[in-house]
Amino acid sequence: MDLGTLIGLIATVVIVLAAINTSILYFIDIPSVLVVVGGTLGVTLIKYRLNELIKSFTLAIQAAFFEKTESPQELIELATSLTKIVQKEGVIALEGQEIKNNYFAKGINLVMDGHSPEFTEKVLRNEMTKAIEESDTGVNMLSGMADSAPAMGMIGTLIGLVIMLQNMSDPDAIGPGMAIALITTLYGAVIAQVFCIPLAEKLKLRTKETKDMLELIIQSVLSIQQGQSAIIMNQLLETYVKKPIEEKKS
Amino acid sequence: MDLGTLIGLIATVVIVLAAINTSILYFIDIPSVLVVVGGTLGVTLIKYRLNELIKSFTLAIQAAFFEKTESPQELIELATSLTKIVQKEGVIALEGQEIKNNYFAKGINLVMDGHSPEFTEKVLRNEMTKAIEESDTGVNMLSGMADSAPAMGMIGTLIGLVIMLQNMSDPDAIGPGMAIALITTLYGAVIAQVFCIPLAEKLKLRTKETKDMLELIIQSVLSIQQGQSAIIMNQLLETYVKKPIEEKKS
Amino acid sequence: MDLGTLIGLIATVVIVLAAINTSILYFIDIPSVLVVVGGTLGVTLIKYRLNELIKSFTLAIQAAFFEKTESPQELIELATSLTKIVQKEGVIALEGQEIKNNYFAKGINLVMDGHSPEFTEKVLRNEMTKAIEESDTGVNMLSGMADSAPAMGMIGTLIGLVIMLQNMSDPDAIGPGMAIALITTLYGAVIAQVFCIPLAEKLKLRTKETKDMLELIIQSVLSIQQGQSAIIMNQLLETYVKKPIEEKKS
Amino acid sequence: MDLGTLIGLIATVVIVLAAINTSILYFIDIPSVLVVVGGTLGVTLIKYRLNELIKSFTLAIQAAFFEKTESPQELIELATSLTKIVQKEGVIALEGQEIKNNYFAKGINLVMDGHSPEFTEKVLRNEMTKAIEESDTGVNMLSGMADSAPAMGMIGTLIGLVIMLQNMSDPDAIGPGMAIALITTLYGAVIAQVFCIPLAEKLKLRTKETKDMLELIIQSVLSIQQGQSAIIMNQLLETYVKKPIEEKKS
Amino acid sequence: MDLGTLIGLIATVVIVLAAINTSILYFIDIPSVLVVVGGTLGVTLIKYRLNELIKSFTLAIQAAFFEKTESPQELIELATSLTKIVQKEGVIALEGQEIKNNYFAKGINLVMDGHSPEFTEKVLRNEMTKAIEESDTGVNMLSGMADSAPAMGMIGTLIGLVIMLQNMSDPDAIGPGMAIALITTLYGAVIAQVFCIPLAEKLKLRTKETKDMLELIIQSVLSIQQGQSAIIMNQLLETYVKKPIEEKKS
Repeated sequence: MDLGTLIGLIATVVIVLAAINTSILYFIDIPSVLVVVGGTLGVTLIKYRLNELIKSFTLAIQAAFFEKTESPQELIELATSLTKIVQKEGVIALEGQEIKNNYFAKGINLVMDGHSPEFTEKVLRNEMTKAIEESDTGVNMLSGMADSAPAMGMIGTLIGLVIMLQNMSDPDAIGPGMAIALITTLYGAVIAQVFCIPLAEKLKLRTKETKDMLELIIQSVLSIQQGQSAIIMNQLLETYVKKPIEEKKS
Repeated sequence: MDLGTLIGLIATVVIVLAAINTSILYFIDIPSVLVVVGGTLGVTLIKYRLNELIKSFTLAIQAAFFEKTESPQELIELATSLTKIVQKEGVIALEGQEIKNNYFAKGINLVMDGHSPEFTEKVLRNEMTKAIEESDTGVNMLSGMADSAPAMGMIGTLIGLVIMLQNMSDPDAIGPGMAIALITTLYGAVIAQVFCIPLAEKLKLRTKETKDMLELIIQSVLSIQQGQSAIIMNQLLETYVKKPIEEKKS
Repeated sequence: MDLGTLIGLIATVVIVLAAINTSILYFIDIPSVLVVVGGTLGVTLIKYRLNELIKSFTLAIQAAFFEKTESPQELIELATSLTKIVQKEGVIALEGQEIKNNYFAKGINLVMDGHSPEFTEKVLRNEMTKAIEESDTGVNMLSGMADSAPAMGMIGTLIGLVIMLQNMSDPDAIGPGMAIALITTLYGAVIAQVFCIPLAEKLKLRTKETKDMLELIIQSVLSIQQGQSAIIMNQLLETYVKKPIEEKKS
Repeated sequence: MDLGTLIGLIATVVIVLAAINTSILYFIDIPSVLVVVGGTLGVTLIKYRLNELIKSFTLAIQAAFFEKTESPQELIELATSLTKIVQKEGVIALEGQEIKNNYFAKGINLVMDGHSPEFTEKVLRNEMTKAIEESDTGVNMLSGMADSAPAMGMIGTLIGLVIMLQNMSDPDAIGPGMAIALITTLYGAVIAQVFCIPLAEKLKLRTKETKDMLELIIQSVLSIQQGQSAIIMNQLLETYVKKPIEEKKS
Repeated sequence: MDLGTLIGLIATVVIVLAAINTSILYFIDIPSVLVVVGGTLGVTLIKYRLNELIKSFTLAIQAAFFEKTESPQELIELATSLTKIVQKEGVIALEGQEIKNNYFAKGINLVMDGHSPEFTEKVLRNEMTKAIEESDTGVNMLSGMADSAPAMGMIGTLIGLVIMLQNMSDPDAIGPGMAIALITTLYGAVIAQVFCIPLAEKLKLRTKETKDMLELIIQSVLSIQQGQSAIIMNQLLETYVKKPIEEKKS
């Protein structure tokens, strides 16, 4: 569970609501919600297939609210123990080993099947590319919505302004008319800035972490296949894990 | 038939119309249509040749409303069966095989003609580059129109404002004058956000899918030419096809 | 002669003029022309040398209004006939051949001089780089003007607004004062959107075509030098020429 | 201590305050501070984990206010003396040497452990990549805040405008109401332009310097491992250090 | 002396002044100058060290107003004469030769010292990288100022608007108050568009020319070292020099 996302989201919404302070009713207008939310979703539906849209949303929500629990340290320990087994008993001894990570398990299966290192790497890299591409689609979709929402907001404001300007006989109606016209712009800005952009950013960071993890697994699998010494492999894999360089000073 | 595009398009237009709510006549102004639509088309005609313009539109419409029916799975099955034929009876046995996909057929013809793998790959890659370039032109054209339409809208609004400001003797005419001036900006935003940008995005995604498909075919043709084992080839080709990594967990 | 550019340009200008509809005199203001046109040219003169500026303009005008008449098909036929000559009578027989395209002629001269393929390719690629760089300068210059013109327009509008705001004693002068202030913004937008951006785009496309053509010539020269079979060479060169993949279906 | 940052920061703030000139109270509004500062931090908390946020801030502050004291010249001298030792007494003689820079020490340890040059380089490059990635996260975070702050400012202004427009019965309240609405836009612009963007830029430059330094160390370690002549090594390393080419003319 | 820069600069300033036309005093406001110029410099001082700032300014001014006098033709002639000397009398005969260009001289020294071609190229490329990096810093600094100046202008305008809106009791003061508020925006736009952006562009072009020149020198030095034939070398070097392809047609 990634509390940061939740705290950040609630904090931002509360702050905006606190800023409104006076009657919240000034800021609720159903047609405006329809134009901005409906318009943004409609436009996104033109761009992507419905199942891609649902898939990307699921990915973004997962990335935003749930931490991956797998730690690189555990992976390195597992890889080190596997390479010791291979050096003692050969590749066949990998058979009984339980590997929770599917991607790692797939790599070890390829090794056991006796494929060449080139083939193993190509298969794993292709799998990685596909996993990354899916997340990238999610990032692009959210970025696209972050562009569409303010644009739909502006369209709503323009519609409101035209209606208001055509009916200027009653001067008292000008203020509220313009207020309602501006609300769609406000909606568009909030949807883009508080929801779409931060979620896109978080999904991008998680994708980067996933890529680093898969890269670590590829290196592990290839090292095991090459029967590399456990110590050297451990030393090399450690350099893939992010630890601040400063800590090593002490 | 890609219903998503149609649904998204209709939904967005209906939402915008619903938002207008009052008299739709406020929002129809023929000179404004001329400035924004005519101006955008005129500018696009300066940038591109007329036949390129028509071709790109056709491509974009096709990409937007019609699904490619060919599935990668069928292609992989076909490639697997062809490689089995080659291993049993040699390259000549490919002669009678019916291959619906023109690009695949061209590749197989090159193999049958006895060209070197390097030559086969170069020819196929050149063909791919050309197919991709054409789609890219379409994407660029639509993106260019998404930039031109709001700009022409702003030009129309500026013209309207100057005329209005020069004739301020009648205060009652100011409101409607400004309303009409703003309509071109509204037109420009709608054309860009509801039509050009989503269609450009869809064409971009379809181009990516076409590229992945052609890449799969190139890999298939080269594997067949090298007489690769059907099982290994099948395993490799499968990694090119997008399937979520999660599904493999179960 | 590329009629598209001319038609597009005239159409856009006529549409904008038609939109003005009322007295065109409202839209003509000599000081505003000076600020936007003069300012944009002045700024461009700081960026580039005068001779570069003239050269780029010439290139852009040529690219916009005149079609290159050379067709890739003719080039391929010429290359095929040359390679047949080389295979029959050797490289020396190329002497008497008339080659209209200067770049191709230069390549054939290098072959006849007995230079190595590496040297030939390096010389031709350097020539290509220089030709492309010149066009790129033109594209950058036009893009820079497309940025400068609206900026100078905004500067003019700000100047007009400051003057108007300092003289608000006569309310009747406010409207026309602001109208004149806005005219520079209108000029800037029209110059950028109707002239600079489309011409930059057209020059970019023509540059791409020139590059494809030079690439085709380099491939031809290298194939001739290597004494490649005329049939294979023809087949390879054809793949460089843009023809829609659909056409081959029938 | 990097005085430039401090002087620049104080100077800019003093200048802005001097520009305000009249009552500073006009410009202090607690809800506006909450919306812009709180909103920006809230949004950043959605994007990044809390510990990443703190780490990046620490890095940015360090980069902004504290100069790295290590000079490349000292590093080159150290590398030259080490290579002399290696050539006289072999790699083992490096044991007693004191190396203050942790990254350099790590490299020398790898050399003493007898690893292959490829392994040494891979380990050092991975460490470098991690150090750079951390700084890049800091730069991205600050750039993201430079985008969020003005956006939150605009959201605050829209909220203020809507409230003001809904309460136009008292004309005297319009001016101050709009003034307060504009304050959030002002806050957002100041936070982005005076704090976030300059700090992001400084962190980017420091990252570049760190990268150059680590590259120099990698070259030094590899030269020592290869037992390169001290003179040649010195000559090569010098070319990595930035010294203006003009100085050499005299 | 590059007259273009001077003419362009003077022309643009004169045009803007002519556009002002009425009392220039409306446009002079010392606090506004302080906010925009002082603020932009302050922000730049946070980003860069003071000595980098001065160095980049010097580079930009040099690039803008002084032409490099060295012509590529002279360099090619010199290289050709040097290669003839080497072929007749060996590398040692280069000793007495006077080479004005420091970079070329450094390269020839490396050749005379008997270094390997790889070492010579690496040293020269590193020197080139450093020279280019310095110019790039200048370009980035000017581009950064072109972003900061309008932003500081907007901050000044917002400050002016807030003060004006808080003091609306005197309607006659509204016009001039808003005029002064707008002046900072005008200053920011002029500084960015008339000074920073064009100078950044010119420095970028000069950097490109310097890079081409250094590339030519590297090619020359390597050709001399390899004892390449003077004719071939001359023919190759010529292809690095920009001459329009059209000229060769006649």
